[in-house]
Amino acid sequence: MEIKNVVVAGGGVLGSQIAFQSAYKGFNVTVWVRSEGSIDRAKPKFEVLKNTYLATLEAMKTNPAAYCRGLADDPKATPEQIDELKAKVVPAFEGIAFTTSYEEAARDADLIIEAIAEDPQQKIAFYEELAKHMPEKTILVTNSSTMLPSAFAEHTGRPAKYLALHFANEIWRNNTAEVMGHPGTDQAAYDQVVEFAAAIGMVPLKLHKEQPGYILNSMLVPFLSAAEALYANEVADPETIDKTWMLGTGAPVGPFRILDIVGLVTAYNIVIMNPLAKDPETTPGKIAAVLKKYIDEGKTGVAAGEGFYTYK
Amino acid sequence: MEIKNVVVAGGGVLGSQIAFQSAYKGFNVTVWVRSEGSIDRAKPKFEVLKNTYLATLEAMKTNPAAYCRGLADDPKATPEQIDELKAKVVPAFEGIAFTTSYEEAARDADLIIEAIAEDPQQKIAFYEELAKHMPEKTILVTNSSTMLPSAFAEHTGRPAKYLALHFANEIWRNNTAEVMGHPGTDQAAYDQVVEFAAAIGMVPLKLHKEQPGYILNSMLVPFLSAAEALYANEVADPETIDKTWMLGTGAPVGPFRILDIVGLVTAYNIVIMNPLAKDPETTPGKIAAVLKKYIDEGKTGVAAGEGFYTYK
Repeated sequence: MEIKNVVVAGGGVLGSQIAFQSAYKGFNVTVWVRSEGSIDRAKPKFEVLKNTYLATLEAMKTNPAAYCRGLADDPKATPEQIDELKAKVVPAFEGIAFTTSYEEAARDADLIIEAIAEDPQQKIAFYEELAKHMPEKTILVTNSSTMLPSAFAEHTGRPAKYLALHFANEIWRNNTAEVMGHPGTDQAAYDQVVEFAAAIGMVPLKLHKEQPGYILNSMLVPFLSAAEALYANEVADPETIDKTWMLGTGAPVGPFRILDIVGLVTAYNIVIMNPLAKDPETTPGKIAAVLKKYIDEGKTGVAAGEGFYTYK
Repeated sequence: MEIKNVVVAGGGVLGSQIAFQSAYKGFNVTVWVRSEGSIDRAKPKFEVLKNTYLATLEAMKTNPAAYCRGLADDPKATPEQIDELKAKVVPAFEGIAFTTSYEEAARDADLIIEAIAEDPQQKIAFYEELAKHMPEKTILVTNSSTMLPSAFAEHTGRPAKYLALHFANEIWRNNTAEVMGHPGTDQAAYDQVVEFAAAIGMVPLKLHKEQPGYILNSMLVPFLSAAEALYANEVADPETIDKTWMLGTGAPVGPFRILDIVGLVTAYNIVIMNPLAKDPETTPGKIAAVLKKYIDEGKTGVAAGEGFYTYK
């Protein structure tokens, strides 16, 4: 089966990006959301994406640093080739359908990408209702960052055609697509999802096993925790720690710059999952206290204009 | 006191680099080694360094990628300016004195940099003998990667003027100089060591507290362990893990490329320090087994021409 009809469930930040990128790459895209109100809230996100794609493509004509692999396979695309790509943006935008009907969404779906809230009860209810309407052919994937597909497989009605396809924010620029099955996922469905990820301009990153945090966060979380510990234990300041990492590994940014991008609230929520964080004398407790101080001052990261660094 | 006379104890890989770099930057340098045989073994390393400095400076005239900050402050140095720097290399090489005498080494030393074997008994014996000969002015630093200055301070006879100054391999290219005191280190001595590190073209990275692993390894070890765990647990292969890190963080290399540079024997020695590594069912046990397999096949990293990647 070739994937043509793609349904994205959820009109949030990632859902809208996945839908827009799929439409830009030529797939028939339907966005399913829970209510008419959700459609109204989602639509402006697509308007913003349309403008971002057009502006980024335009910038790519003259500025090599503007290049986004999700927008053009060739980093050396000519201005004429970029104009051809720009011509795809408005039709993609206009072609995206919206529905609140499970039946309408599922009817002829080759692939359904679930990108709804990270709430297991909501996901289970969604999957169970969806299962009543999906044709046999449909492959179902979740974009969940924090939950494993094995937790939901039995609720989908098609465990063999259910797996995870995990995107990063700003998918047209950050092209990771981690593909992860559960023990009952069929290889054929897995391979089709890998192929689809590549077809929408992502770099498919194959996991052979279920892994909480996938590949990237499995490394990022201990790395950032180690950096946070150095600062919370007053060994060194964020600037020195970042400089050391950059000089020592050649990386363009250090851990505190990454924390500013991730957002300090997310970092805080991760550290307080550790029961030790309740004790202010422990390293997790000290990290939580440092992050809370920044958060209380409104310094939550790049999005707020200030975190460990200032972006105003 | 201004630092002029620098003694480097140890003619190994790092000792010879620190001595050569200090001489290149205009300091009076004496290398102390244990025996005449050690002098014979050290001298060819200085010959190699001389040629490396000359060749790298020459390459910097035409190739911006060859630039090494330790060799020229200005990345845009002109060919004429580079010729002036090249003219310093041979006199630096010729000016380095060698001795096996504690007394001669210590007599007028402003700074002694200990870079002898990572063996606590050898270090203690060295410090206790040295203490008999050092004038009061001498600041003593250790380049130890794995031991804390507080472990040796009482043996130096001058705990207030004793601290750690930790270099990375290829110091003319990798300019990190982690500066770390123990609780009894005087601020004035600490500040002079920071100043000296900057004067020989390093980037001083200040630690406010003792920290095993300093800054860089405190982050690198958990980061590399997390990557090793993903591979040892068969979640993904090294190429995929590296690609994910590079795409996700913009880094030029991933963890397995770094492991090849660090060397798999070092990585193995770090993991077997964990008592869990004795149990083959644990993650550390699985990591140890994976690394041992590569090591047994001679794939120990870049230096061997092959590790996780091939460099032949």
